[in-house]
Amino acid sequence: MNDYRIASIPGDGIGVDVTAEARQVLDRAGELHGFRLQWTEFDWSCERYAKTGRMMPEDGIEQLRPFDGILLGAVGFPGVPDHVSLWGLLIPIRRAFAQYVNLRPVRLLPGTTSVLAGREADELEMVIVRENTEGEYSQIGGRHNPGQPGEFVVQESIFTRVGVSRIIRFAFELARTRSGRVCSATKSNGIIHTMPFWDEIFAEIAAEYPDVHSEQTHIDALAARMVQHPDRLDVVVGSNLFGDILSDLAAAVTGGLGMAPSGNVNPEGEFPSMFEAVHGSAPDIAGQGIANPVAQILAGAMMLEHLGEKKAAAAVNTAVEQVLAAGEVATPDLGGKSTTTELGAAVTAAL
Amino acid sequence: MNDYRIASIPGDGIGVDVTAEARQVLDRAGELHGFRLQWTEFDWSCERYAKTGRMMPEDGIEQLRPFDGILLGAVGFPGVPDHVSLWGLLIPIRRAFAQYVNLRPVRLLPGTTSVLAGREADELEMVIVRENTEGEYSQIGGRHNPGQPGEFVVQESIFTRVGVSRIIRFAFELARTRSGRVCSATKSNGIIHTMPFWDEIFAEIAAEYPDVHSEQTHIDALAARMVQHPDRLDVVVGSNLFGDILSDLAAAVTGGLGMAPSGNVNPEGEFPSMFEAVHGSAPDIAGQGIANPVAQILAGAMMLEHLGEKKAAAAVNTAVEQVLAAGEVATPDLGGKSTTTELGAAVTAAL
Ligand SMILES: CC(C)[C@H](C(=O)O)[C@@H](O)C(=O)O
Ligand SMILES: CC(C)[C@H](C(=O)O)[C@@H](O)C(=O)O
Repeated sequence: MNDYRIASIPGDGIGVDVTAEARQVLDRAGELHGFRLQWTEFDWSCERYAKTGRMMPEDGIEQLRPFDGILLGAVGFPGVPDHVSLWGLLIPIRRAFAQYVNLRPVRLLPGTTSVLAGREADELEMVIVRENTEGEYSQIGGRHNPGQPGEFVVQESIFTRVGVSRIIRFAFELARTRSGRVCSATKSNGIIHTMPFWDEIFAEIAAEYPDVHSEQTHIDALAARMVQHPDRLDVVVGSNLFGDILSDLAAAVTGGLGMAPSGNVNPEGEFPSMFEAVHGSAPDIAGQGIANPVAQILAGAMMLEHLGEKKAAAAVNTAVEQVLAAGEVATPDLGGKSTTTELGAAVTAAL
Repeated sequence: MNDYRIASIPGDGIGVDVTAEARQVLDRAGELHGFRLQWTEFDWSCERYAKTGRMMPEDGIEQLRPFDGILLGAVGFPGVPDHVSLWGLLIPIRRAFAQYVNLRPVRLLPGTTSVLAGREADELEMVIVRENTEGEYSQIGGRHNPGQPGEFVVQESIFTRVGVSRIIRFAFELARTRSGRVCSATKSNGIIHTMPFWDEIFAEIAAEYPDVHSEQTHIDALAARMVQHPDRLDVVVGSNLFGDILSDLAAAVTGGLGMAPSGNVNPEGEFPSMFEAVHGSAPDIAGQGIANPVAQILAGAMMLEHLGEKKAAAAVNTAVEQVLAAGEVATPDLGGKSTTTELGAAVTAAL
């Protein structure tokens, strides 16, 4: 029997509610498919920050290092500035473990409808491959002359050859296993130091994959295209910021953010990868038992897939689809009256 | 009789086609409303760049300075890198003339349908107020060790107190004349030097406008909201990059990019303002007479409004609406078979 050591970080708000459900579903999948998940729970969160002044202990990264995978709920709570909670937990984990791929598959699941008029499920399936360790999110920069009339702030976007090459290469490899199409998000007409560099590397790598159809679109036009012609997109690769924007948008045009999972993946498996829902901690509805656990359950399935338990991952995905298609158990965001726990239990039962 | 000196820069591709139509409509509006537009045409374009190595002459800015307004078509042509064509013309004009407001109203016009399911015209009307002179678009930055394994590029985003304050203040003033609601696009959770600064100034200015409802949303969530709940948005203020993305997206969920005008406005009137369609030069359909001139005609109406010819501006807007509502004259993108010229002429006739 395979054993996997999994770190669970439920975090704040509905992160706690949905992670509890995902664990139950994954445990049951393990029983049925012959593996065991050994969970260790960490209370790292804004609540912890409020008490201790730190989102995670100083040696947090070291504590996570031995795990085979990390399941993260969501962090964020009123009163703790977002840039504190995120730069104190989520972003350091992504970087320390070289989780340079943020993989965000979206598709229109059964029982849900798109906000786009007349779009069928099979036209709305794509995956956003987001660079996850550099780019527009950096700690370099600062503020000049605070409070003075001439005050200004500077933020450095940093793109390295290593960082850009590996994410683009990952996208091309992924496209080979899917539709054979890659679209790169750029803005080389406006942002003149980093984006032409991104395009250059994209062109170099595209030349190595003559069997993959490649194209690039400026982020503004690509956002428009995502609502006008999403059917023509499959693998979309973008920088940290562009991938972030496009994946929320892609989730919104398919089943909504309650349905979108995400993996922070270290493809080489040198370090643990981390899986989480795309949605945030939604403190306004936390603890009420009405949060939709589907995104977190699907994030769990991505984790199983990454651990090599492909059959179990497929079974979880299928169970989610069956429950949604039947439509009998649905949380309020899906137009139903069921609780978070009821929906989680229905997926477990469907396994 | 009021006379206005107007610089026309048709530019490349369909910019030429649609600017010709807009001129005719505006001239007729002048005849009917008692003013005259004195046009001077400039051939500044990628074609010019191909011949001379410059998009505009060295003293281009000086040549434009005496004008009361500028009507720009579009620039961009295959073979001329976008960052050359734009940083050689569009962006320097925006900056030299302190056109710090990029005003991008969108709404669902009669005779057009939204890509969003079940949305009515009156739910889809908003205006994106985009910062137009600083932010993520800057010339500061560069490349370290080209071609080496450790190669990287740096791009500086720069936000000044002056620049951020004036655009946010403009948005609040505008909201007072409209719905009384402003939403600020931010990303202070990921982008930690510039965006918390933006939020800080937004909060300071919001406090001066207790009568205006203010809120802020992260750009990723805001993109999602634009397709899920666009009805709850009216004035949306964002940085150069965020405003660019949001305005294309907003145009896409309303009538499409063929319908979206934009003004690069110097609100103090110290320098000429410039008006243009949001769409690009679309070289693939240039000169075929099938481009939709509506966005450029509406940009012309924005120019009339800015010049103080409010009745004429309203008349042009109404004429466009009437022609679209009748649906008899429509270019291919609107599902019709009419030419650019036929649609322009129909608007002129409707005046
Ligand atoms: C062409 C490009 C530089 C420009 C911009 O991003 O400003 C365009 O997208 C626009 O919106 O006017
Ligand atoms: C919370 C924020 C920093 C984060 C990001 O932008 O990376 C979130 O939006 C996400 O997509 O995981």
